[in-house]
Amino acid sequence: MQQTVQIVITAGGTSEPIDGVRKITNTSTGRLGWECLLATIDSFNQQQKAFKIHYIHTQTAFLGEINDDITQQVTFIEADTTQEVYHAVDTLTRKQQIDYFVHAMAISDFSYHFSIPIQHLALEIANTLKANPNIGAEEIRKILSNPTQHIPQNRKITSKDALYIALQPTPKVIALIKQNNPKTVLIGFKLLRNVEKKELLQAAKRLTDKNGCDMVFANLLSQTGASNHTGMLIANNRIIATPLGKENIAKTIVEQMQKATYSSQKTDKI
Amino acid sequence: MQQTVQIVITAGGTSEPIDGVRKITNTSTGRLGWECLLATIDSFNQQQKAFKIHYIHTQTAFLGEINDDITQQVTFIEADTTQEVYHAVDTLTRKQQIDYFVHAMAISDFSYHFSIPIQHLALEIANTLKANPNIGAEEIRKILSNPTQHIPQNRKITSKDALYIALQPTPKVIALIKQNNPKTVLIGFKLLRNVEKKELLQAAKRLTDKNGCDMVFANLLSQTGASNHTGMLIANNRIIATPLGKENIAKTIVEQMQKATYSSQKTDKI
Repeated sequence: MQQTVQIVITAGGTSEPIDGVRKITNTSTGRLGWECLLATIDSFNQQQKAFKIHYIHTQTAFLGEINDDITQQVTFIEADTTQEVYHAVDTLTRKQQIDYFVHAMAISDFSYHFSIPIQHLALEIANTLKANPNIGAEEIRKILSNPTQHIPQNRKITSKDALYIALQPTPKVIALIKQNNPKTVLIGFKLLRNVEKKELLQAAKRLTDKNGCDMVFANLLSQTGASNHTGMLIANNRIIATPLGKENIAKTIVEQMQKATYSSQKTDKI
Repeated sequence: MQQTVQIVITAGGTSEPIDGVRKITNTSTGRLGWECLLATIDSFNQQQKAFKIHYIHTQTAFLGEINDDITQQVTFIEADTTQEVYHAVDTLTRKQQIDYFVHAMAISDFSYHFSIPIQHLALEIANTLKANPNIGAEEIRKILSNPTQHIPQNRKITSKDALYIALQPTPKVIALIKQNNPKTVLIGFKLLRNVEKKELLQAAKRLTDKNGCDMVFANLLSQTGASNHTGMLIANNRIIATPLGKENIAKTIVEQMQKATYSSQKTDKI
């Protein structure tokens, strides 16, 4: 019996709740993820391969028309916060072997910790200093990281004064994938803003090295528009394609991820 | 000639940009604002009054089907950030007399100021203390409010460590309305979370007293669901109605706002 190819695609931008009314969101639309879904269906249908897509998406991610192909081949999994996405990816990749993982979702690097009016924080530090004038940077960091006066998480913030929101780093979802499934072909995404090409390539390399990406699509925020989205598809430290347009980007990713070696596509050395 | 009744309705939740990729959003859907639009059109059509609606909405606010009535009677004005909404309301209310202003939009109390890794901030305070061990709360507040090491606004935040985001209070849009148009009938909205009825009523009273609201619709986050939205419509310090369901709430607001006196509806003294 032919083995069913298992593919995970993630799409959209996560939301981190602040106080039940406010949240920190990511501007990602989920459209590139959706195009990757369509391109994957097309590609595997054409090759007449049995396949199954697990589509992990946020509530606000763009969803196109759901046709019969999609209904049959795709399981939709909604996950909105970084924690929910982490849990969904961990569960899925522990449960079964994933052949391809297209990780297009923009996941928050931070989650909400607490908030505090700046005035209250200043007073707390000043009072600590009165009791102990010789405290150093580490002690101050501890107060800043966990002041006693912060606003409880379940209350809407209503301060009229300048405020700090403390954020803490979230665990990296992308690190889970190869950890749980070392044989997965992993496609990472790197989006930066207002940087030179060199800095973007370096960031893509760090993402690759840290998480074992087989390919990374690196792009700049200024080049992610609906019609003019472009970027660099990088594999083995080489730029193997610079597709233009979300549909094209998706097609190129899906085509390239199925190749075991990228040596023939080397076009531009980083 | 019959005078055209001028109505402004605001709807949706504002977004405050953080670093071009992230933003702070409000969970408001804009559905109650949309229901107010429909109820207003119904009511004034039934009375055969000439009217014009200025619908100020955020990009993410729910927009229903745009029929001919809506096309003819409504001007849509998109505004996403608090600053954009402020500008739109100020311009509109300076330009002309507004008869009714239904201010259903959830507007951020804060906008993004800067961000800084907590570690950097601790170091900056510690260094200041070394130079001047006797600084008090006010000097510390000044450092906290404007540290030298903060991350520039046009760069994506990439810190791996715990981070502070500093927020500053935004100017109150609702205060503009009676300021520019003292004769407008103003309907304010107050949403709180996890508080007793008494605290919600007090908050509604403060909103009224500060901004000259003629009515306030006060509601709790836990009671804003699609089917079970409810709250208290308050005028002259009295609860005049407790409608259930967004359509009903909207109808009640539009009906009540057209009455010059609320004395006959007194049902419950605050």
